[in-house]
This record gives sequence, structure tokens and C-alpha cells, in this order.
Amino acid sequence: MPHLVILYTAQLDDETDMSAVCRHLADTMLEITDETGKPVFPIGGTRVLAYPAPHYAIADGGAAGIHVGGSGDYGFVYLNLRMGKGRSEAVHQRVGQALIDATKHALRDVFARTHMGVTLQIDVGQEVFDAKHSTLHPLFNNH
Amino acid sequence: MPHLVILYTAQLDDETDMSAVCRHLADTMLEITDETGKPVFPIGGTRVLAYPAPHYAIADGGAAGIHVGGSGDYGFVYLNLRMGKGRSEAVHQRVGQALIDATKHALRDVFARTHMGVTLQIDVGQEVFDAKHSTLHPLFNNH
Amino acid sequence: MPHLVILYTAQLDDETDMSAVCRHLADTMLEITDETGKPVFPIGGTRVLAYPAPHYAIADGGAAGIHVGGSGDYGFVYLNLRMGKGRSEAVHQRVGQALIDATKHALRDVFARTHMGVTLQIDVGQEVFDAKHSTLHPLFNNH
Repeated sequence: MPHLVILYTAQLDDETDMSAVCRHLADTMLEITDETGKPVFPIGGTRVLAYPAPHYAIADGGAAGIHVGGSGDYGFVYLNLRMGKGRSEAVHQRVGQALIDATKHALRDVFARTHMGVTLQIDVGQEVFDAKHSTLHPLFNNH
Repeated sequence: MPHLVILYTAQLDDETDMSAVCRHLADTMLEITDETGKPVFPIGGTRVLAYPAPHYAIADGGAAGIHVGGSGDYGFVYLNLRMGKGRSEAVHQRVGQALIDATKHALRDVFARTHMGVTLQIDVGQEVFDAKHSTLHPLFNNH
Repeated sequence: MPHLVILYTAQLDDETDMSAVCRHLADTMLEITDETGKPVFPIGGTRVLAYPAPHYAIADGGAAGIHVGGSGDYGFVYLNLRMGKGRSEAVHQRVGQALIDATKHALRDVFARTHMGVTLQIDVGQEVFDAKHSTLHPLFNNH
């Protein structure tokens, strides 16, 4: 059910291994439990997709960053998690906090050398139609 | 008006022709009629865009799939259709069913050899501003 | 806070410099003021990301465009701006009008030689969780 989609400025591919970041965030999602200790997200339904944007424009375009000795090529990472309806507010906060902590940890070296922003937003989908087809879920329901 | 955006794990580009899948889904959209037999979507306003994600992490990362003899490189396809306001619930269901059927058909061979999930969700846009400019629509209004 | 994400058919990369379009739109956003003359968007929080779709299907697939002497390879540009809550309806309209005008201007040459559609939609985010981490904002708060 959940999809975490990451949109980011493509120069960050030179700074970090975004596939490893995806894996780290998926593992984080799989470890999150609700108030009763049950996992929030089903294994077979946990997906993280990351997209480098080949074209981007951030803030003033670089002048302020160059002025303080940076490259001026600012980074930006936007993480959007879409969850199904019916979770508690407490679960939303728990998931959000775990993901922003994991993101800051995964990108700590990049933050140390790049002027960069990260934004994480969680949406609760208001879809009017929802359909799934999967040969993945059965792998985990058997376990 | 409608935009169908497809986000998918990039290894599927080795498994299928995603441009053909886009065309198949656009044709499906163009054939859908409402309760009165009128096409739901205008020709010039029907668009399908598909994006392979170069970085992704799905489910457990592959262990369960390898355990049952698969590659462990799970696939995922997320289809999101954004429609304008004002359609009936029956139209939403008709569109959704036609698109999930068309997707399962188009990807049946990939499903046969890959552990993979497909999710289709339809959203009704709640935009606070909407503007269009097109040299496409006139091509079809003339017909 | 605002993110402008542009999804477009990839053949347009042969027709225009989409990085320059991003910059033009970011500059447009930075110049927009509200009813009191204050900038609507903070410098450090203004981001534009553009993604060419390698796979797409638009309208009838080309027949009508070829019939009138075009290439049949229709273009499409979808711009989605996500703004934070709490802005007035007047600000939404002002931002939307400025962005669609800037887009039409930036792409006027492409429109002159391509059958193409542009859609701009502004959404007000209804996120249930929102977190930020930035080394960008301080650059501009000091100024």
C-alpha cells in the first residue's frame, strides 16, 4: 500500500548512492510498528522509488552559496509518502519521524559538504478507485 | 484533462516495451464511455507518461523471491490517474476497471516471469488553480 | 515550501533548454508578491524540478497532427505546484497566472513548431506530516 517517492536534484547522484538510501528507507519503514506493536507496513507492499531530476532550479541559483564558499549547486530532496486511509495520527507522526531521522542519517555526509534541503511530506491518499495485482504479496503471506 | 502517470522500477524496461504499454493505456482511455455512451476523455486531452525509477527498494530486497527460485529483483508499477472533478462514481469505477484490466493484459508476460506488483489509483484533482494552453485540442475539435 | 514539478514528453529536450525554463519559472516564483507586497515564496524554499518522460502516449498518437503537416510527435508539459496551506485565493490566482504566463512565454518558440499542450495545476498540500531539514535557508535568512 505505501509508496515512498523521492524526487531529487540529479547532481546528488555524484554525492551518494541513492539506491542504498532507498533500501535504508524501506528497511526503516518495515521496522515501524503501531501502538500495538504490529508492523505498520506489509513487507510485500513496501516500495521506495527515487528519481533524479536532470533539470532543476533551486533558490537564487547559487549566488548566496558561492558567496560563502560553496559550489552554488544546491541540492534538494523531496520525499513523499502516500499511505492508505485509516491510520491513526500517532502512526503518521511515528512514520514521519522515523523517515526524516533515517533520511538525515543517510544523507549526513552530503549535508556536511553541500547546501541542501530535504522535505518529507506524508499524504493520506483520497483515491476514488484503487486496484492492485501482485505476485509479491504471496511470497510474504506464506512466511 | 486526464493525466495518467506511471512510475515503475527501471529493470522492467528490459522486460517490456513501456512506450507500447503507454499507447495501449491511452487507447483504453479513449474507448471508455460514460452512462450515456459519450467518450469520458477528450482525445486531445488524453496523456500517458511513464517514468522508470533508476533507484528503488521493494519489499525485503529479494531474499524471499530468491528463496522460491526468482531473481529477487522485484518489479513494481504504480499508475496514478488524475481526473477532473464532476464525474460520477460509476465513471470512476468504469475507468479504473478498464485501466487495471488493460494493465494486467499488457504486462501478463512480465507477471509470468517476475515477482511484481501493480497498483492503480485514481485521484480527483482538488486543484485551486488550473490553466491550459494547447495547440492539440484544435486538431480534434475540427474532426 | 513550494515545489514546482514539471513532467513532460522527452522529445521536448530537443526543442528547448528545460534547465533554463526551470530557472525562468523559479525567478517568476521569487518575484511574486502577495496583497501586502511581501514575497509569497521564501528564496531558500523555492524549487523547480523537471522530468522528461522517456515513454509517453498523447491523444491519437499522431495521425491528426501528421494530417495537417506536423510530425505527429505531440508534446505535453504538466506543471504541478504544491503550496503550503494558509494562502488566500487571490494569491493562488496570482501565482497561477504568473506561472502560466511565464511558461507560455518560455515555450513560445516550441509552441510555434509543435503540436503541444501545457497544463498547470496548483494544489494546496493536505499533508498529515511535514518535516524539513535545510542548510539552504540560513544562507538567505542572513541577508
